Amino acid sequence: MQTWFNTDRPLLLSGLRGRVVVLAAFQVLCPDSIGSGIPQAQRIYETFEPTDVAVIGLHTTFEHHDAFSTAVLKAFIHEYRLKFPIALDQPNPTSPIPHTMERYKMRGTPSLVLIDRHGLVRKHAFGAVDDLRIGAEIGALTQESGTAAQAQSSAA
Amino acid sequence: MQTWFNTDRPLLLSGLRGRVVVLAAFQVLCPDSIGSGIPQAQRIYETFEPTDVAVIGLHTTFEHHDAFSTAVLKAFIHEYRLKFPIALDQPNPTSPIPHTMERYKMRGTPSLVLIDRHGLVRKHAFGAVDDLRIGAEIGALTQESGTAAQAQSSAA
Amino acid sequence: MQTWFNTDRPLLLSGLRGRVVVLAAFQVLCPDSIGSGIPQAQRIYETFEPTDVAVIGLHTTFEHHDAFSTAVLKAFIHEYRLKFPIALDQPNPTSPIPHTMERYKMRGTPSLVLIDRHGLVRKHAFGAVDDLRIGAEIGALTQESGTAAQAQSSAA
Amino acid sequence: MQTWFNTDRPLLLSGLRGRVVVLAAFQVLCPDSIGSGIPQAQRIYETFEPTDVAVIGLHTTFEHHDAFSTAVLKAFIHEYRLKFPIALDQPNPTSPIPHTMERYKMRGTPSLVLIDRHGLVRKHAFGAVDDLRIGAEIGALTQESGTAAQAQSSAA
Repeated sequence: MQTWFNTDRPLLLSGLRGRVVVLAAFQVLCPDSIGSGIPQAQRIYETFEPTDVAVIGLHTTFEHHDAFSTAVLKAFIHEYRLKFPIALDQPNPTSPIPHTMERYKMRGTPSLVLIDRHGLVRKHAFGAVDDLRIGAEIGALTQESGTAAQAQSSAA
Repeated sequence: MQTWFNTDRPLLLSGLRGRVVVLAAFQVLCPDSIGSGIPQAQRIYETFEPTDVAVIGLHTTFEHHDAFSTAVLKAFIHEYRLKFPIALDQPNPTSPIPHTMERYKMRGTPSLVLIDRHGLVRKHAFGAVDDLRIGAEIGALTQESGTAAQAQSSAA
Repeated sequence: MQTWFNTDRPLLLSGLRGRVVVLAAFQVLCPDSIGSGIPQAQRIYETFEPTDVAVIGLHTTFEHHDAFSTAVLKAFIHEYRLKFPIALDQPNPTSPIPHTMERYKMRGTPSLVLIDRHGLVRKHAFGAVDDLRIGAEIGALTQESGTAAQAQSSAA
Repeated sequence: MQTWFNTDRPLLLSGLRGRVVVLAAFQVLCPDSIGSGIPQAQRIYETFEPTDVAVIGLHTTFEHHDAFSTAVLKAFIHEYRLKFPIALDQPNPTSPIPHTMERYKMRGTPSLVLIDRHGLVRKHAFGAVDDLRIGAEIGALTQESGTAAQAQSSAA
């Protein structure tokens, strides 16, 4: 991830240990991203305590590369008044699939990745996701003790 | 609670210990019950495992008593294809507020009460409730160990 | 039609000549009536001038007869704050299909009947109807001259 | 209007005489354009006969000029599967307000302009517009005789 908005410095997952992380991948011209993924990411951001749950947006695409630019994403974030940190996925010189999309093996946008307090991916969804179900999954993850599980994981 | 639908026998909270209970109070002619409360109760019923989360509907009202009957509720449940257990609140001969509404001090419909695995009321909401937030709260409650907490509570 | 609400006296179509009439049939326990038909009837009532377009609600049903009463409809109209005239369809002693439902050969609820300024039925829809299309049809009917067409019709 | 999509040649209002024209101005990063204006334009396009009603989209903006390009609009039209003709408003070298936005004195996006069969502007709306009302207005305009009115207008 190269360019970031709504944050002073690039975020690293390692820096978010102890928090549940919601990674919301979108593309500004994708109808389901705009109609479902982005509003849900914003609701998640507004519902949970930032010390418990970190929401990170990721603009990513495997097509229309000539349409997107930092200026497009900047205007989009301004118009939709998004406040959570958002990264522009880093183009891949040898593939139409950008780096982060490839690393998480995303099938397209919107995609939603839930990462627990220890940095483990616990859910990976492609397409619209039900608010009630995603709320339940985030709520359950927030109940897991970061320290205790970390201890177990260290011991293993 | 006198008359029940979608269950062989009346349900008692004591018989639901170990499960998270969602008590959804509604009235069939109340716009917010029909537009928000009942569809949400149905979504909760469809989202969670019945061994984890029990959804119970309660038809209750402090007005229009002459309009409601067992036949109205029966037709409503049939038309909306509701599958979770639903009780008709018991009229109170000395007050317009029926018994269960009074016991839970409900302010009207829709009301939503969350009861944990030990039978303790953990949330009481009046009016429309956000799916994401209620999902998170139910998800968190399902993570609480029924047995462990019961032990603690016995020790206290 | 026997019992009326929101009007001093029973309405007769003959008394509405010169106006476009929207007859919105519904049933208070029918999900599509409550989710689509009734809110649309209310929007039509609020959008058009009453001197141009008359909205009439008709509560009708071919089943659950024991559930419905004047008290149910009265409470419903109060709770949904409906302001347009609404009639309770007259039961038919020899058939489960009440009189008005039979006369207009309605297949169920919600049903929407558009009647032009001369009393001719111009549209008959069963189920949810698109706002844009019904708006266009009502808008077109309001452009028809009541007097001119009546003259033609008298001459014919 | 310079660049066009979904049409072989640039459209001129003079070439659309005899039809009601719906000019739907939008901007791809404007939440109300995407949430309300564009879906409504698409519904209008699908509801009316093209020989009666011509829908024309206009991408226009007075800000974020560096974000927009032909490639953005092309990708947007592809992703949203829009079929009606769409023009990219022509930048104005001496003002941030592009040519067509200025000519119609639009206040922003979404804007909707209704033009009758004779080329006269009959409605100019800024912001979300109700489907029922816009349907009624288009429906009424389609009832106006292009020829007769033109005759009157010539006589005046």
